Amino acid sequence: MLIRAFVPAHVTAFFAPVKGEDPLQTGSVGAGVNLSKGTSVFVSVETGTLERHIHVAFNGEPVKREDAVISYSVAEEIVPRDFTGEVEIWQYFDFPSGYGFGNSAGGALGTALGLGYAFGGTWLSVARIAHRHEVVNGGGLGDVVAQLAGGIEVRVKAGGPGVGVVDNLFFEDYRVLVVPLGPLHTKEVLDGDVIKSIEVEGRKALEGLLREPSPERMMALAREFAERTGLLSGELLELARELDRVLSNPSSMIMLGKGLFALVSEEELGRAKNLLADLDVPYDAAGVYRERPKVGRWVG
Amino acid sequence: MLIRAFVPAHVTAFFAPVKGEDPLQTGSVGAGVNLSKGTSVFVSVETGTLERHIHVAFNGEPVKREDAVISYSVAEEIVPRDFTGEVEIWQYFDFPSGYGFGNSAGGALGTALGLGYAFGGTWLSVARIAHRHEVVNGGGLGDVVAQLAGGIEVRVKAGGPGVGVVDNLFFEDYRVLVVPLGPLHTKEVLDGDVIKSIEVEGRKALEGLLREPSPERMMALAREFAERTGLLSGELLELARELDRVLSNPSSMIMLGKGLFALVSEEELGRAKNLLADLDVPYDAAGVYRERPKVGRWVG
Repeated sequence: MLIRAFVPAHVTAFFAPVKGEDPLQTGSVGAGVNLSKGTSVFVSVETGTLERHIHVAFNGEPVKREDAVISYSVAEEIVPRDFTGEVEIWQYFDFPSGYGFGNSAGGALGTALGLGYAFGGTWLSVARIAHRHEVVNGGGLGDVVAQLAGGIEVRVKAGGPGVGVVDNLFFEDYRVLVVPLGPLHTKEVLDGDVIKSIEVEGRKALEGLLREPSPERMMALAREFAERTGLLSGELLELARELDRVLSNPSSMIMLGKGLFALVSEEELGRAKNLLADLDVPYDAAGVYRERPKVGRWVG
Repeated sequence: MLIRAFVPAHVTAFFAPVKGEDPLQTGSVGAGVNLSKGTSVFVSVETGTLERHIHVAFNGEPVKREDAVISYSVAEEIVPRDFTGEVEIWQYFDFPSGYGFGNSAGGALGTALGLGYAFGGTWLSVARIAHRHEVVNGGGLGDVVAQLAGGIEVRVKAGGPGVGVVDNLFFEDYRVLVVPLGPLHTKEVLDGDVIKSIEVEGRKALEGLLREPSPERMMALAREFAERTGLLSGELLELARELDRVLSNPSSMIMLGKGLFALVSEEELGRAKNLLADLDVPYDAAGVYRERPKVGRWVG
């Protein structure tokens, strides 16, 4: 049996981490955008061997357990103990990992949905497993629930699937421009001094967005958040200012990656591409993903 | 400005009503299916008149306030008090009203999403308004949150949007066969003696489904629920038994309408259609709607 799951990439605009009593009560409030590109997970289940084997591969390359702790942990928990056979989990990412596109959660949730489809469970029961291993292993705090919600999302109450509450904004036909320049180590940022500032500014941004809920306001608040926390500074801030000159809404920083994103019209996208090409800076574009993650039998 | 919203029809398989302290805490637990056919709502907003006017039409025919209390109430609450202009809300239903397809909630939620898109708000803020007027006016208890969730849904915690928790089942490519025979008056059923039995059997069915979560089990539990509560009896029960002879999963009763539904393969659908045509019984078929409701600018 071959199963395919798709989970959108998720870019966080602003956030505040929330530590609860257990992983399911832990997460983040904030806002972000789900993209039409993301993580595709192919799950192959074959019986007929004498032992229970689970294999994970990233972009076609097998990875060891210590390099894919979250995905292996999710799989170990969902594949029944007494199952004998080969379970292969092939994860393909449209964006580079560590750059703030929610690849870790995309792989975890896609794996959970694919294995849930194969071995049983419900969406929430397997998504909770993905969320828990994300939290415990220092992946994302809010990506799984955000990806389940789709669209341009606002996490109004922190927590895992069934506990956290995710709202959505109405929006016009925006395209999402992304400028992925490099990775940031989420864990190090969240363990540093900046965390106090993130907590204060993240909550302030959320309150501001709920007073005036629109994607345009979200981008303005995201930019304020990024600058006030000091996360967006130096050359990246200069690049954001360059970009702003050709856009009607402010660009902001991908949380957490060394990169920028912006909501743009088709026309603005053209202008921004020209600018970024002139500056010799990498970029990509995607649509806003309005649906739920997908999972189903793969027939080629 | 012309806006279109689509909300899937929703058929409840089994349920137990839950009365909370306020409408947002009130709802139902249970399970059901969202269909690829449903309610389309076109919202037209024109400024330039001196007064604030709101008009609602069902299937092209203008309806008076007293005949569309829920939709008018939703619109009155979302359209700003100081707005001057014409707001027209055109609701089109793929299934007849009162037959258990969630038309009332579809119209309320579609109106809320369309007006939220035009006048501002978030998905949850306007969906809560739809839910509240549904509950207060004796429409559905769980349709709005079920329609927001999509797919084959399980309401595990009762309540309105952001309070209730809705899970989803994994499923293969089922088609949904529906046999709509006539209306049932939800309010009268829920006020009658059968309500005690519905509460007991509904909770039992939910527990059973969460122990073994699959669409096939849901249909078996729905049928037990329908028969044990006595809602499915007489000629309708006989018709269900006829249908079962050509299907692999049991058919069950649409809650609440005088009608049946079943999850079928393409091949079974063909056999069932032949049988129903022979019996001169009306039927329709749809896909399972896997997405979220849609809303956006309508450009023809």
